[in-house]
Amino acid sequence: MSPPSAMEVSAVSDTSGVIIPNPLSAPVQSNEVNGRRRKTNISQWGVAAPCDTANFRLKSHDHKPKAKRWNHVMTQEATIRKGNSLKEAAKFLGRPGIISLGGGLPSSEYFPFEELSIKVPKIGHFSEAETREFGVVITAGKHDLAENKSNFDIATAFNYGQGSGSAQLLRFMTEHTEMVHDPPYQDWKCTMTVGSTSATDMILRMFMRPGDMILSEEYTFSAFVETARPMGVRVCGVPIDAEGLLPEEMDKILTTWDHVARGARKPHFLYTVPTGQNPTGATQSAERRRALYKVCQKHDIYIMEDEPYYFLQMQPYTGPNAPDVPPPSSHVEFIKSLVPSYLSMDTEGRVIRFDSFSKVIAPGSRVGWITAPEEVVERYSKHADVSTQNPAGMSQLILFKLLDEHWGHAGYLDWLIHIRMEYTKRRDIILSACAKYLPTEVMSWKPPMAGMFHWMNVDFRKHPDYPGKSIEMIEESIFMRVIDHGALVMRGSWFYADAEEEHDTLFFRATYAAAPGEKIDEGIRRLGEAVREEFGLGEYIKR
Amino acid sequence: MSPPSAMEVSAVSDTSGVIIPNPLSAPVQSNEVNGRRRKTNISQWGVAAPCDTANFRLKSHDHKPKAKRWNHVMTQEATIRKGNSLKEAAKFLGRPGIISLGGGLPSSEYFPFEELSIKVPKIGHFSEAETREFGVVITAGKHDLAENKSNFDIATAFNYGQGSGSAQLLRFMTEHTEMVHDPPYQDWKCTMTVGSTSATDMILRMFMRPGDMILSEEYTFSAFVETARPMGVRVCGVPIDAEGLLPEEMDKILTTWDHVARGARKPHFLYTVPTGQNPTGATQSAERRRALYKVCQKHDIYIMEDEPYYFLQMQPYTGPNAPDVPPPSSHVEFIKSLVPSYLSMDTEGRVIRFDSFSKVIAPGSRVGWITAPEEVVERYSKHADVSTQNPAGMSQLILFKLLDEHWGHAGYLDWLIHIRMEYTKRRDIILSACAKYLPTEVMSWKPPMAGMFHWMNVDFRKHPDYPGKSIEMIEESIFMRVIDHGALVMRGSWFYADAEEEHDTLFFRATYAAAPGEKIDEGIRRLGEAVREEFGLGEYIKR
Repeated sequence: MSPPSAMEVSAVSDTSGVIIPNPLSAPVQSNEVNGRRRKTNISQWGVAAPCDTANFRLKSHDHKPKAKRWNHVMTQEATIRKGNSLKEAAKFLGRPGIISLGGGLPSSEYFPFEELSIKVPKIGHFSEAETREFGVVITAGKHDLAENKSNFDIATAFNYGQGSGSAQLLRFMTEHTEMVHDPPYQDWKCTMTVGSTSATDMILRMFMRPGDMILSEEYTFSAFVETARPMGVRVCGVPIDAEGLLPEEMDKILTTWDHVARGARKPHFLYTVPTGQNPTGATQSAERRRALYKVCQKHDIYIMEDEPYYFLQMQPYTGPNAPDVPPPSSHVEFIKSLVPSYLSMDTEGRVIRFDSFSKVIAPGSRVGWITAPEEVVERYSKHADVSTQNPAGMSQLILFKLLDEHWGHAGYLDWLIHIRMEYTKRRDIILSACAKYLPTEVMSWKPPMAGMFHWMNVDFRKHPDYPGKSIEMIEESIFMRVIDHGALVMRGSWFYADAEEEHDTLFFRATYAAAPGEKIDEGIRRLGEAVREEFGLGEYIKR
Repeated sequence: MSPPSAMEVSAVSDTSGVIIPNPLSAPVQSNEVNGRRRKTNISQWGVAAPCDTANFRLKSHDHKPKAKRWNHVMTQEATIRKGNSLKEAAKFLGRPGIISLGGGLPSSEYFPFEELSIKVPKIGHFSEAETREFGVVITAGKHDLAENKSNFDIATAFNYGQGSGSAQLLRFMTEHTEMVHDPPYQDWKCTMTVGSTSATDMILRMFMRPGDMILSEEYTFSAFVETARPMGVRVCGVPIDAEGLLPEEMDKILTTWDHVARGARKPHFLYTVPTGQNPTGATQSAERRRALYKVCQKHDIYIMEDEPYYFLQMQPYTGPNAPDVPPPSSHVEFIKSLVPSYLSMDTEGRVIRFDSFSKVIAPGSRVGWITAPEEVVERYSKHADVSTQNPAGMSQLILFKLLDEHWGHAGYLDWLIHIRMEYTKRRDIILSACAKYLPTEVMSWKPPMAGMFHWMNVDFRKHPDYPGKSIEMIEESIFMRVIDHGALVMRGSWFYADAEEEHDTLFFRATYAAAPGEKIDEGIRRLGEAVREEFGLGEYIKR
């Protein structure tokens, strides 16, 4: 199940960050990225140096249309924000020989770090065991930049930075975005976030007014609702099926919007997790996305595309005993196998895409990025300057050393294929356990195609206490019984987009991301046992 | 000028984080902290484990009064915030043998890091040169916690965490806070921030409504104004002298507050940088602070105490040719030498103190913390859960390995004394350059006692174009001429608390934190040259 050997040597990168491309994957742009990189301006590597992601794009996007304007949907706060005047004084630092007594940047002399090293996997040898044995130690020195050993070092990364994040890592993100999504409008840019949770908070502040409603899946990421509600923003749940949001339903909601009955003006924003949605695991197909984009165009809806699970798209599910599908044989095939993103079909520039390293590298980096029209990116990074600033330089340096200098784009794609295959295994384990242990008389599910979550429907109408007990009471009762049986799954009602709406479904969410395989199997066994008891069904008999 | 040899061996800590205290500094609590630590609960070290800083405090604070309530000054947003319901499900994870298919935490199996090492200074050998030669390499493994090698590791730190930050590092911050400030009320707690810039943004959101005014120094940290203004919050500048805020002036402003004339209700918050204020370098004396605290009590003003420069308090300035003052001879003497904080005199619990590692370790950690009454800390960390989350685990792990496991509290105090002595040297260099090069006919200044900034007054009335040209025009003209002479200093007007108010002072700010000594000297020489030219004074003649 590991990537094929051709991929194992698909790319190496030397310490200067120059990528030697994999000949097998020549059509993938990492090759061309290499060509482009020779033109970069070295002043952008300095401490808190400004940079412009437009310079990191390989292709010319000039022939494409410009993004639509966002200013009319921006809050007052976002509109009047000026950014940091002191950072603007940095423009004078370009003068030759100038001595700055200006910016209050501490001297790196007082950073008590001389070197930082990480032991990381060799390309193609990605498992924990292999890394323990054959891992490579890569080191960042304190003054590597001044000593021409690297584009990034401790003295630079550990100092203050711009709201956009460092040029060093932002270049990698921009190139990666262009490779995978190639946005079809002209003025797209990237800027870093301290994670998509923070980005959600900031984007809501930029575009929502108290009393507004925002569209989302009827079961949605609970932290999103919990971020929005205190701002006075309510979430309007759109009905879903196994492929997520239903375009006709969304169109109907918007077409028949009654601002008096709803107590809110017609929504102008959609928040969606199109791939491996949390909690339902649903993945919108390409066709579904195109239909939803059209509805957004029709009603002038802007889209927050939150995609932490994009690269957790798995191999097709072939059933419990069928042979596995072989992994993608090249980077091109891998990228082609991914459902196209909204960003990739965003001809009008109405999408803000959220990317995150949390699910594919580590949540503790607190590093992500958004891709959006220049107007949004500029406002966002100005806000960051006086708020979150930028992701920790410590994280940025670690990611840069790993992704840019050690793996390069090709190696990173290999890593993503590795993750894909690993999640496929995990997904197959949970599905096989469900087939074995869950009472299909009252439970049903669809195989997830992406992400970390398995979503199981429970037929509450068959519960002995129904309709005497409400759906919530039955859910509570099952939940507590599952705990008594020694397993924890999440209650569907925790994910209601709008808890005040009526609901006539009962779900539980289980993740296959966290526990080892045998625990997943045992956890599902306990869940099945508890549900059988709860519904007064016979005990599980090994089939 | 380096710390005395007694200090150089003042503390060592073994890798289990147990501190062997310095006998010289026995009264300092690091010793007792050691005793306290034996009681800690190991479940708090786990992935995203909740913790309570009350458990990290050494002393009993039960005999102290409880903090006053803050709920009546909280915004609707902060009041109704519920926090993350999924994180609350974590309470069931305590059950023995439970299998969690609940939280969507990625498995550390897929964090591509096997080890992280940093090369850092030995205690007492803090300079860059010494670290290069004798630095110690400390290493965090992936599964050190499970393998009983450490309380913290990659598998834990690099995963998701709580809004409070990790117990491992928060314990260190809480102990340090208790040692240095010993807050005189009962229910104080600490919680991490992703830096004080973000904390300022979040606290303003928690306590300010659009249209409110907040008190601050009449020249204030410009990013603070730039954070507040887009929220519709204006800053009311309070007159200052060389010791910062003037209590009588603040009292007068509040006593005579006319909400119609001001267009805002009477302020309920003060934002102040009491030590080495940015931009003026002013440090409020203990007596000044007590007087200001009384004014705050009288008018029920809550205090945001922003203290990034607290440990950049320097040795007394003895003049250009006088002998240096010897460094503090023990930790006790060092802590006694620090001006007492507002937190240390906060009998009522009306202070939120902001601490930061940016100026004493590195800005690129993006790690800080606040200390405040439980009510504020609880609301703050709930907000963090759905916004900034917590500081990067990568940073937290690096700081923990350095501060807790390697240096311990005593070693960290030694480091802070080292920084103090280094900044004293730098401050003395800029003052000596000013004495040499600046035209005292038109420029005047006071020696800064703390921080990174030197604040120089210019007598604009002596400018040949005054009063034909406005203060701003003269400032602009000097600023540009200084740049033409090859130096950059900051314009005082960039720091106006309220740019719309009338101002009749003209200042420039120079930092001695960033450039090497000889550049500081040369930069000030260029500044002197430019000002002489601008005012038509004779050329500088070496005295």
